[in-house]
Amino acid sequence: MAAAAAESRYNMDKTALFKITYGLYLAAVEYEGERCGCIINTASQATDTPCRILVTMQKRNHTTELVMRKKSMTVSALAISCPTEVIRHFGFQSGRDTDKFADTAYRTDGEGNPYIAEHVTAYYSCRVMQSIDLDTHMLFICDVEEAENLSAEAALTYGDYRAAKNGRVSEMPVESEKKTVKKYVCPICHYVYDGDIPFEDLPDSYVCPICKQPKSIFQMIEE
Amino acid sequence: MAAAAAESRYNMDKTALFKITYGLYLAAVEYEGERCGCIINTASQATDTPCRILVTMQKRNHTTELVMRKKSMTVSALAISCPTEVIRHFGFQSGRDTDKFADTAYRTDGEGNPYIAEHVTAYYSCRVMQSIDLDTHMLFICDVEEAENLSAEAALTYGDYRAAKNGRVSEMPVESEKKTVKKYVCPICHYVYDGDIPFEDLPDSYVCPICKQPKSIFQMIEE
Repeated sequence: MAAAAAESRYNMDKTALFKITYGLYLAAVEYEGERCGCIINTASQATDTPCRILVTMQKRNHTTELVMRKKSMTVSALAISCPTEVIRHFGFQSGRDTDKFADTAYRTDGEGNPYIAEHVTAYYSCRVMQSIDLDTHMLFICDVEEAENLSAEAALTYGDYRAAKNGRVSEMPVESEKKTVKKYVCPICHYVYDGDIPFEDLPDSYVCPICKQPKSIFQMIEE
Repeated sequence: MAAAAAESRYNMDKTALFKITYGLYLAAVEYEGERCGCIINTASQATDTPCRILVTMQKRNHTTELVMRKKSMTVSALAISCPTEVIRHFGFQSGRDTDKFADTAYRTDGEGNPYIAEHVTAYYSCRVMQSIDLDTHMLFICDVEEAENLSAEAALTYGDYRAAKNGRVSEMPVESEKKTVKKYVCPICHYVYDGDIPFEDLPDSYVCPICKQPKSIFQMIEE
C-alpha cells in the first residue's frame, strides 16, 4: 500500500491492524431526557481492582457528546445471535435525527442510562473517571458500577459480524458485474462497504455505520 | 457472586466482564541489551489518523518495566495456528529469570525491539506517546510506526485459546474425581486454571500465566 507507506519511514501496512480482535458493543446514555446509543467495537477491561474498562468512541457521535456531559454510560456486549437489524438500527443512523430507543424495549441502570435486555449477553454500567482526548476519538477510562449477564450466549465479535455479512452477500444472485465492483474498508473498525450503490456514488456525508469515520478515509480493497 | 456484589450497591456480577472479547498478543521490547516479551490480551486500535493503539499491561511484568524505560515496543497478533507452547514460553515464566528470546528466532524493528516472525499474523511497532497509571496496570497510548502482515492467517482470540485448552483437557482420560475438581478463573484476563494440581496447592507465588495477576485474586468457578 503505497499511500500508507508514505506516512512512515518504516514499513507501514495499515491492513495489518485488521488483525486486532474486537467485540461489538452498544454504548448508550440518557442525558437530560435525551436517550442515545451507538455501536462501538473498542471496549476492554483494564484492571480488576477496581473493576475498570476502557471505551474508545468517535467524537462526532452524538452518544459520545452526551457521555462527555453525563460522565456515565452503559456498555452492552451484543450476543452472537444479535440480528443485523439491531446493529443497523443503532449503528446506521445518528441519534441527532432520531430517538433510537423510541420503539425499542429497554431497561435503565442506576444512573438512568438505557440498555436493551434483548440481543445482548451482558451489560456494564460505567462511570467515566478520566477522559482522554485522542483528536478524532475520546478514550474513556471507566469504573464499572453494575454488571450483569443477560443471557448465557457467547458475545458477538466483529469477525463474526463481518463473516455473517459476507455470507449474506454471497447468497445474493451472482452478477457478472459483481467481480469488478470494488469494496471499500473503513481502516479504523474494518467495516467493509459492499452495498449495491458503488462506493464512489455515495454522498460525501457518508460515514462508516460502525465507527462514524468519514467516507474520505475509506480504503479500496483490491480483490 | 456474593463477594463481588458486596463491592457495589448495585448489581455487580464480575463474570459478566468475561463477555468482553479479546485477541491474544505478544508484547516485546529490548532495553540496553535485555530482551523481554510477554503475552497480553488488551490491545485495540484507538484512532486511524494518527495510527494509534492502546495497550494495557500488568505493572509487575518485567516487559512492562522495560517498556516504561524504552517508551517503545512491538505488539504481535498471534496466529490462530500458534502452538500452546509459544504461549506457555512467553506467558508462563518471567523475563527476570530467563531470556525468552535466547532460543527463539526473531527479527527486530527500527527501534531494535524484537518480534517473532513465526506463529504471529501481524506485528506493530509502537512508540509510547502517553503512559497512564491504572494502579495494577499501565495503559500505554502508542503511535504505530511500523506494521506488517506476516501471514494470511486469522488472529488467535482469547476465546479460541480457551476453547483449544478446554479441548485438550477433555481429551485426557476421564477421572471420576474430575467432576469435583474446582476450576479457578483469573478475573482480569479470564484464564481458567484447570491443571492437575489442585489450585489450593499451588504456591502463593503463582501468578496468572497470561496477565500475571496474583493467585490471591483468582475466583473459584462452581460447576
